[in-house]
Amino acid sequence: MAHQTHSDVVPGLSRARKAALTTGADFWHTVAAPEAGIASIMLTDGPHGLRKQSEGGDALGLGDSVPATCFPPAVGLGSSWNVGLIRTVGIALGTEARAQGVSVLLGPGVNIRRSPLCGRNFEYYSEDPYLAGVLGAAWVQGVQSRGVAASLKHFAANNQETDRMRIDVRVDERTLREIYLPAFERIVTTAAPWTVMCSYNRINGTYASENRWLLTEVLRDDWGFDGLVMSDWGAVNDRPRALAAGLDLTMPAAAGDERVVAAVESGELDEATLDEAVRRLLTLIDRTERTGEPPSDADADAHHDLAALAATESAVLLRNEGLLPLDVTDLDSVAVIGEFARTPRFQGSGSSQVVPTRVDSAVDALTALGGGTAWARFAPGFRFDGTADPDLVAEAVALAEKSRTVVLFLGLPTEFESEGFDRTDIDLPANQLALLEAVTAVNPRVAVVLSNGGVVALSGWQDRTQAILEGWLLGQAGGSAIVNLLFGLANPSGRLTETIPVRLSDTPSHLNFPGADGVVVYGERIHVGYRWFDTLDLPVAYPFGFGLSYTTFEYSDLVLTPTEDALEVTFTVANTGDRAGAEVPQVYVRDVESTVDRPVHELKGFAKLLLAPGESRMVTIRLDDRAFAYWSSRERRWVVEAGDFEIRVGASSRDIRLAGTFASPGDGVLPTLTGMSSLSEWFAHPIGGPLLMQALASGTDGARFDTVDPLVAKMAAGTPLTKLAAFVPGMSGDLVDELVETVRARTPRP
Amino acid sequence: MAHQTHSDVVPGLSRARKAALTTGADFWHTVAAPEAGIASIMLTDGPHGLRKQSEGGDALGLGDSVPATCFPPAVGLGSSWNVGLIRTVGIALGTEARAQGVSVLLGPGVNIRRSPLCGRNFEYYSEDPYLAGVLGAAWVQGVQSRGVAASLKHFAANNQETDRMRIDVRVDERTLREIYLPAFERIVTTAAPWTVMCSYNRINGTYASENRWLLTEVLRDDWGFDGLVMSDWGAVNDRPRALAAGLDLTMPAAAGDERVVAAVESGELDEATLDEAVRRLLTLIDRTERTGEPPSDADADAHHDLAALAATESAVLLRNEGLLPLDVTDLDSVAVIGEFARTPRFQGSGSSQVVPTRVDSAVDALTALGGGTAWARFAPGFRFDGTADPDLVAEAVALAEKSRTVVLFLGLPTEFESEGFDRTDIDLPANQLALLEAVTAVNPRVAVVLSNGGVVALSGWQDRTQAILEGWLLGQAGGSAIVNLLFGLANPSGRLTETIPVRLSDTPSHLNFPGADGVVVYGERIHVGYRWFDTLDLPVAYPFGFGLSYTTFEYSDLVLTPTEDALEVTFTVANTGDRAGAEVPQVYVRDVESTVDRPVHELKGFAKLLLAPGESRMVTIRLDDRAFAYWSSRERRWVVEAGDFEIRVGASSRDIRLAGTFASPGDGVLPTLTGMSSLSEWFAHPIGGPLLMQALASGTDGARFDTVDPLVAKMAAGTPLTKLAAFVPGMSGDLVDELVETVRARTPRP
Repeated sequence: MAHQTHSDVVPGLSRARKAALTTGADFWHTVAAPEAGIASIMLTDGPHGLRKQSEGGDALGLGDSVPATCFPPAVGLGSSWNVGLIRTVGIALGTEARAQGVSVLLGPGVNIRRSPLCGRNFEYYSEDPYLAGVLGAAWVQGVQSRGVAASLKHFAANNQETDRMRIDVRVDERTLREIYLPAFERIVTTAAPWTVMCSYNRINGTYASENRWLLTEVLRDDWGFDGLVMSDWGAVNDRPRALAAGLDLTMPAAAGDERVVAAVESGELDEATLDEAVRRLLTLIDRTERTGEPPSDADADAHHDLAALAATESAVLLRNEGLLPLDVTDLDSVAVIGEFARTPRFQGSGSSQVVPTRVDSAVDALTALGGGTAWARFAPGFRFDGTADPDLVAEAVALAEKSRTVVLFLGLPTEFESEGFDRTDIDLPANQLALLEAVTAVNPRVAVVLSNGGVVALSGWQDRTQAILEGWLLGQAGGSAIVNLLFGLANPSGRLTETIPVRLSDTPSHLNFPGADGVVVYGERIHVGYRWFDTLDLPVAYPFGFGLSYTTFEYSDLVLTPTEDALEVTFTVANTGDRAGAEVPQVYVRDVESTVDRPVHELKGFAKLLLAPGESRMVTIRLDDRAFAYWSSRERRWVVEAGDFEIRVGASSRDIRLAGTFASPGDGVLPTLTGMSSLSEWFAHPIGGPLLMQALASGTDGARFDTVDPLVAKMAAGTPLTKLAAFVPGMSGDLVDELVETVRARTPRP
Repeated sequence: MAHQTHSDVVPGLSRARKAALTTGADFWHTVAAPEAGIASIMLTDGPHGLRKQSEGGDALGLGDSVPATCFPPAVGLGSSWNVGLIRTVGIALGTEARAQGVSVLLGPGVNIRRSPLCGRNFEYYSEDPYLAGVLGAAWVQGVQSRGVAASLKHFAANNQETDRMRIDVRVDERTLREIYLPAFERIVTTAAPWTVMCSYNRINGTYASENRWLLTEVLRDDWGFDGLVMSDWGAVNDRPRALAAGLDLTMPAAAGDERVVAAVESGELDEATLDEAVRRLLTLIDRTERTGEPPSDADADAHHDLAALAATESAVLLRNEGLLPLDVTDLDSVAVIGEFARTPRFQGSGSSQVVPTRVDSAVDALTALGGGTAWARFAPGFRFDGTADPDLVAEAVALAEKSRTVVLFLGLPTEFESEGFDRTDIDLPANQLALLEAVTAVNPRVAVVLSNGGVVALSGWQDRTQAILEGWLLGQAGGSAIVNLLFGLANPSGRLTETIPVRLSDTPSHLNFPGADGVVVYGERIHVGYRWFDTLDLPVAYPFGFGLSYTTFEYSDLVLTPTEDALEVTFTVANTGDRAGAEVPQVYVRDVESTVDRPVHELKGFAKLLLAPGESRMVTIRLDDRAFAYWSSRERRWVVEAGDFEIRVGASSRDIRLAGTFASPGDGVLPTLTGMSSLSEWFAHPIGGPLLMQALASGTDGARFDTVDPLVAKMAAGTPLTKLAAFVPGMSGDLVDELVETVRARTPRP
């Protein structure tokens, strides 16, 4: 089928038609214009599976969609730290979408997990923007390789569910640029998603949907985004204002076409802006029509197997006092307790809820492992509704007493976390903790398997256990993945993408989450996640990047090699144990001395290496300029300062195995000097310093700084040069202007 | 001498003359207009003494002023928690100013001690705005009673010295209203200072000197200020813009009269604004001419005695393992070690630096106590410049070894803290800590006396001591005050106005101080000082409000009595020891349940009671509406919510002795409902709730919320009513408008 360039048709469309094309036809489709050869395309929720609603279904009916493979949500998948795996999952998702005639899959979600309380954290990758960006880019590449558009969301600073449609996020630009935007930036610049979805919230007073700085200046001008920006469902308050800001498609179907037309006619909205929005829709249609494989049926079994593989890499072994792996030959001595083993919680609630093609429970998987006889040594132990049930506890304790080993499945039931609201604590339900206490009182050999979307507190109870396997939400094949990990048929290789705190009140946003009265202040600024804990040297339950294996790894031979445009960090990782296993070496960069405050270190590279017993492999990770840069709110650009940087290679943010120092020459750009630059900034400037010294030395009436009392000099160091004119006779406004102009003239252009 | 109303003369002044009157004539005087009978008046630095510079002195020559009584700086004076004392000191300061022909004394400084690092904390009263406001008001009342104008400063949010002339303070309005403005507000509304001085910094992007919201809307419109606003010295960047914002007097003498005239002529500046600025200057001249006693010579000896009394009440006894008070009859067994005992540090550096009329050192006071024989048992022990001096240590150790008891004077030398820069740590100098270690190794009976403007860390060394007397900066009579306290001739009664943290990194602003690149984010928001420590339940070295005595106090009989316009809190304090002593009972209010996050409790009242042994006294403290209110950033007003408040009466923020509950009816104002109000806000509203229920119940097509899944209902609770129209068929924009209008019509006007 031959395509014409869709955008050619825009001039022929009426204003009313063009206005209509900038919103949906219904909940899930764009508007068609058959007379112009413009088809309607379908969008569906993601990101870890397709939520294509059945025809005629209620738009709010979350459970009513066609079956699709439910892969692990981002909280699980991200814990794999496996870029290739995530790309493969993306390909599978794209294949399923194509097979269902879906053109846009709404994902990935790459918002930062600012607080463990956020009800939607399970849909997001990490507390770290670099990690979220790298993983999200892989997802986009996978999905789009099948001709299905990704929709990078929720842009931006949507880090809580409380009041999400009104909340005004007060956040400084540096924090946005360093924490809340880089995942979006990396994905836009390396994976070119065809759409971006704006978030509901306001940023510094302006709704994301109406935020021209965000949707146009940053997204398009700074990053070069060339796709379509759509709204989150219901996020637009004022369609002309949204269009003017750079939002192309208001979803779902919204009233107000006539307002858009009127805005064009009154001159409030430039017609070229409306045309551009339509053109971007047509480009999206072109891209999803023309690119990728022709649609084919998805292989449900193969995708289930992929979901199982993904789940296996997603679980994180937090604690193991020698209990794991269990021995398959001792299968009959193992008791399984906890309703989650029979009724797995494998995904979160809300718009991402998939109707799975099938579900493996742990009990199912144990049945299979046992050769097919139904697994008998199970007790539910507690009720999901949180009420105490002494009979269930007694039954579980009896089972635990007569078993050698207990695997206890605990976690957060569905009602405890969801899109749409935030948690108010990070505790496991009291009835489950009571069960844990009762079971561990009669049997010390207890491994806990957790099912939870958001981080839960462990510090109050973990000492009672021999092992903890953090299973997050593992998708439809999580049950078999967990059983394989417990029995050593697979080796745990997940790593934490979020610090597990000792207590909620240690977390950086604690007194600033979720805000009040429609305002939330991002008061911890850039110190999110491990940046906070590590910079303050606070105790944590488990650090960012942490995860155990059934084997051991050694790091050696760090070499730092500066090249033309990067620093190459080379080192060797060896599997020193007797099982195959995967390690995730992480590269953190520490700015040893900086003119601004920076986190003690930041993740800037990682790899995932599968190593046979005894195998060692050399790894090279390239750190480009950005790895050393901070966002200067004064210069409004990324700045790399000259000076030492420590390169730290470790198995977690708190387990640094190798370190070396790199002396950066800096980016070579001189800071701009003005009359409002301080004396110390002048003196530190290679051009301005000598000029000012000369000017001061030639002053005859007291403006000689070399004779000033050192304490007075220290007090004066921060004074802007212009202000000095009020205090120092030799200094005048004219002289300041002359100095500024001279420095400007002598400074090389960057 | 008869006065005409100065402001009558304004219409007769030329524009140029009027422009000239809005800046200084020189560093310390206003411009005279003899032809219009307008005199020049003099301003001098304060606040704890007069810094009237000698004629012809260098403007920057801080040490070059006429002798004046140096009272304890605010860090000391504030620790007295004694309103009457501070008013008396204010009267003395006013008397000295009048005697010197000074019309305006630049003080009080009531900025909040946001971080212990701020170099100018010694000039400020507290981390608590209520305390700073009550104490500052007393100072203003005292000074102005002598016909000398106070200049309330630095308005506002000037909480650091680093980059103070440029720093942009990013702070939300609630935090300003609850933390950084209330001290100013209380002083303006209760003590009516004749001038206010704006600060150098920017607030949310706008220089204080050009901030119309701050200088006019808040200061004059909200609070009713009727005096003159002047700039801090050099704080004005643009005179017409400053005038337009409400700044009347640019100090010191500044160029740019012709710019002011041109701005009036171009219409950029309203001439009425310029006239008003001149009129305010003339009002100030009137007030300082007409009010108060005629000038009289100040009695230097009487003022020195007052300074000694103030110093005695300012020191805070932090620790006493039974060592203090020392016995005067054992005077000969006491060694005094530490340069501060001989060379007291009694005030801070910078513009507040007074040339004292005389200075008592501790060694002088001991000499006097000993009957006049020069005190011999002294060793300096360390050098102020921080360098190690083994000989001095050896000498001190030898003295300590042969003495029964050691009083060790430690602290921060002048160079460690000052106006103009901030500290970067809160440690005592290493050479002093080494001395402490050496001395305590040979003599366990060591009392430490501290001299420091900013808080210092104690946790690393306090266990080595038997007692710690925090002497702050105590003014020119501090030496005798300390000796009187040590030997029980006076009973310590100072209380901490700032929490002493265990470590700097525990402080609320730690990772947000002092900002970078010209921006500081007040990320801890309202949780400043004890609000942070107590809400997070963090360990502290010594809590806010803490201070020991040589006697003991008991609290009893709490009664809460609601009256027409206040809650009366009545209780009894008894001196249960055998010495006279003063106690400072403190009333904290805790909002038991609130719709917004609030600090766990806040200081809302206090008293200082001098009680004879065995005496008990009933105290009544009135709490008005403000004591229960928070600033609603949504409603933009103070809101008192209905519900329980706990009234806590204690000897510090962590030593609550009595508590009772008060059920507040709230302020009775209904929240405003709009289409953007959430479903839960609608349902909670006594008028809107039933209306919405009715509208939903009459919906025929699925808009019935009583049939919705509870999880979906929870997810939807935060959705604005307007947004629901996109999701729920029964809900339309028109229906929302109708509901909003009906609620508006039925809501009583406040």
